[in-house]
Amino acid sequence: MNDIGHGGKRIVENVLKSDKAENKVQGLKKIPIREQIAHECINLSYGFFTPLQGFMGNEDLDSVSKENTLTDGTVWSIPIVFDLSDEELKKYDVKDGETVLLSYQDEPLAIFDIDEIYKSDKKDLVKNVYGTSDIKHPGVKRTLDYKDNFVGGKVTLVNEPKFNEPYASFWKTPLQHRELFRQKGWEHIVAHQTRNVPHTGHEWLMKLAWFAANEDLTVDTIKTGVLVNCIIGEKRKGDYIDEAILLTHEILRTAGYFREDTHAVTFALWDMRYAGPREALFHSALRTNIGCTHHMFGRDHAGVGNYYGPYDAHYLLKKYKDKLGIKVLFLMENWYCPVCSEVTSSALCAHKEQSQAFSGTMIRSILMDGVKPTKLVFRPEVFDKVMECSEKYGYGSPFVNDNYLANRKSIFTLDHINVGKA
Amino acid sequence: MNDIGHGGKRIVENVLKSDKAENKVQGLKKIPIREQIAHECINLSYGFFTPLQGFMGNEDLDSVSKENTLTDGTVWSIPIVFDLSDEELKKYDVKDGETVLLSYQDEPLAIFDIDEIYKSDKKDLVKNVYGTSDIKHPGVKRTLDYKDNFVGGKVTLVNEPKFNEPYASFWKTPLQHRELFRQKGWEHIVAHQTRNVPHTGHEWLMKLAWFAANEDLTVDTIKTGVLVNCIIGEKRKGDYIDEAILLTHEILRTAGYFREDTHAVTFALWDMRYAGPREALFHSALRTNIGCTHHMFGRDHAGVGNYYGPYDAHYLLKKYKDKLGIKVLFLMENWYCPVCSEVTSSALCAHKEQSQAFSGTMIRSILMDGVKPTKLVFRPEVFDKVMECSEKYGYGSPFVNDNYLANRKSIFTLDHINVGKA
Repeated sequence: MNDIGHGGKRIVENVLKSDKAENKVQGLKKIPIREQIAHECINLSYGFFTPLQGFMGNEDLDSVSKENTLTDGTVWSIPIVFDLSDEELKKYDVKDGETVLLSYQDEPLAIFDIDEIYKSDKKDLVKNVYGTSDIKHPGVKRTLDYKDNFVGGKVTLVNEPKFNEPYASFWKTPLQHRELFRQKGWEHIVAHQTRNVPHTGHEWLMKLAWFAANEDLTVDTIKTGVLVNCIIGEKRKGDYIDEAILLTHEILRTAGYFREDTHAVTFALWDMRYAGPREALFHSALRTNIGCTHHMFGRDHAGVGNYYGPYDAHYLLKKYKDKLGIKVLFLMENWYCPVCSEVTSSALCAHKEQSQAFSGTMIRSILMDGVKPTKLVFRPEVFDKVMECSEKYGYGSPFVNDNYLANRKSIFTLDHINVGKA
Repeated sequence: MNDIGHGGKRIVENVLKSDKAENKVQGLKKIPIREQIAHECINLSYGFFTPLQGFMGNEDLDSVSKENTLTDGTVWSIPIVFDLSDEELKKYDVKDGETVLLSYQDEPLAIFDIDEIYKSDKKDLVKNVYGTSDIKHPGVKRTLDYKDNFVGGKVTLVNEPKFNEPYASFWKTPLQHRELFRQKGWEHIVAHQTRNVPHTGHEWLMKLAWFAANEDLTVDTIKTGVLVNCIIGEKRKGDYIDEAILLTHEILRTAGYFREDTHAVTFALWDMRYAGPREALFHSALRTNIGCTHHMFGRDHAGVGNYYGPYDAHYLLKKYKDKLGIKVLFLMENWYCPVCSEVTSSALCAHKEQSQAFSGTMIRSILMDGVKPTKLVFRPEVFDKVMECSEKYGYGSPFVNDNYLANRKSIFTLDHINVGKA
């Protein structure tokens, strides 16, 4: 296990330890940032976005938008941009070449070496990235909501986030992920992207993918693992609450549906763009950076509504697969087949007419009813954990509601750093 | 799909069409051969044993015995030898450099260009190949029963076997296998070795292996298939009858447990050596020659009794895997898990204590009782087909009995060729 990430570049951490940080931040102009930008500062600094070490400049953004690549040719599909309004630009009086301090939750988070301040056509951007300019698409809305000026430049973390439980147990930086894989002796690691509580259809996607990734003799030592890398970040009403996503995936292993030596759960901070095929390409880069060797992609990967066909991500991934540093596994939908009496893959089972798809609506109604379903569809331990999370974290629901949006426990907190006066 | 077989050598057919054959065989000395040798003449002539085109000479045999390779360095693990007693040598009066006619079922089968007549230490041979000289091991017995002289040289088929039903539908030469794969559009073909009627544990080995072999987008076209390549040949009492093996594997697909575009059934003529790890190496060469790109190996591959550990084949395959022209898939035992409520792999499921192994004894008792078992363990269509084969081909049993051994329908017949007088 080496430390090479996406684009063949070594993982670089731009993180100052607190003693150095305190000196460095004195006297810098302070710009407060919102959650999304804070998440991205953390990602940029730890190498989750390798080869990016900062927010994109105009040329990279343009190339990503039109070509799905950075200007150096590396595949990159999603804009990573820092936005300021004209009023903010005036208020903070920032210029190219200047270093400023980014603050979050009223504490210093990162320093930002500004290279470039520019404008970009957001309407072109959404058409290229999302294939639609429909404002009802949440990624489109997010993009059109960006303020009018983009600011490119390198980011250095000066205040490492302290994750709260239950997140703390699942947090790993890219280098820490690689250390985990070394400890486990894994040489093949297949990433499972999720924002879901797992039903048996998901469980079998992961199991099938394990076999697709495993290339070794497994009698004495397992050298292949499934890494469930949950996406934790901005929530929409009706989403599963973050705590339930993490804790139910964990229980699939502790309840024995996966052996201890074959499965681990971590997360990445990311505010979903729902860009479907483009988001899939982004996920492949993210999981390359945390050290995965394989990435599974199933039906309806990271889409929303009916903007993308169920396997559009597969087509785009196929086009780029030889340029990614990770092996793409194309998985078809799993379904429950009453003829086979089991969960099986639509790639192999011919009983399409009798098959029962796992629908979100079906699973949702199971959970809302609170009646334990058949374990062929939903594991009882997962069900119990969902109910527990619902009470403990979800204000009575496993799905995000207004109460959760307003009052959820914060994912991480920042230490106090004394910055003096700007 | 090219025509390259084991050892990187092109598949060569040494087969004379009947009009040419009749001229060629006139006046040759005729040596009658037994079933095993007839099977091997057919295999050698069609390229199933590529790079071998004839029975082994002394140097190759010695190298195979001691080094698991031919003298040219190609991995080869099982002796392919033609044996004659001193009496036969005298009776047929054969010499190095002579061409003779091999006859089977009283008809010409192949011509044999004799290169070399030699002796070999059979006791050394069995110790090297089988790791034991115990005469109770059927492979050891077969070897020690060889007559005292070995005859090396190239074989050319002069009379192509005409397969009887149900075999005819499943017979393919190595080149015909490749044509089948081309027609199906398969680029990845994973071989399943079997002499069994499939239970769900076998079915899921094949399904898991399919995912391990599949490397493509599968939305529109499937480019990966499972080839069930049954071993048909000499039977021992208690084995499944050959007809049931072929027809039950076929019905797994026609009953929809595999999609039409993901699965095919063929067979190879081979008298099992039960050499465990060495037999596994041999199987990998055989399946490379019929055009497979992957080969699954499970627990207890091609062993007998307790001569080999359950995963000894995996260890030997691991040693040679980079020298084989086929990708080895190491699969662990599947079991039925009452906690998971399904068939699953011991590589992933942690409920070892609760798990229920698929034992031959258990399945045998199901079939002997004639009571349809749960479809989680044995598919009802497979069960019905076993019962049908039992009546139609098995003299009232799906397992080989004395009646079957004495009276079974022959697998193939040979045309009459007029040979004149030797």
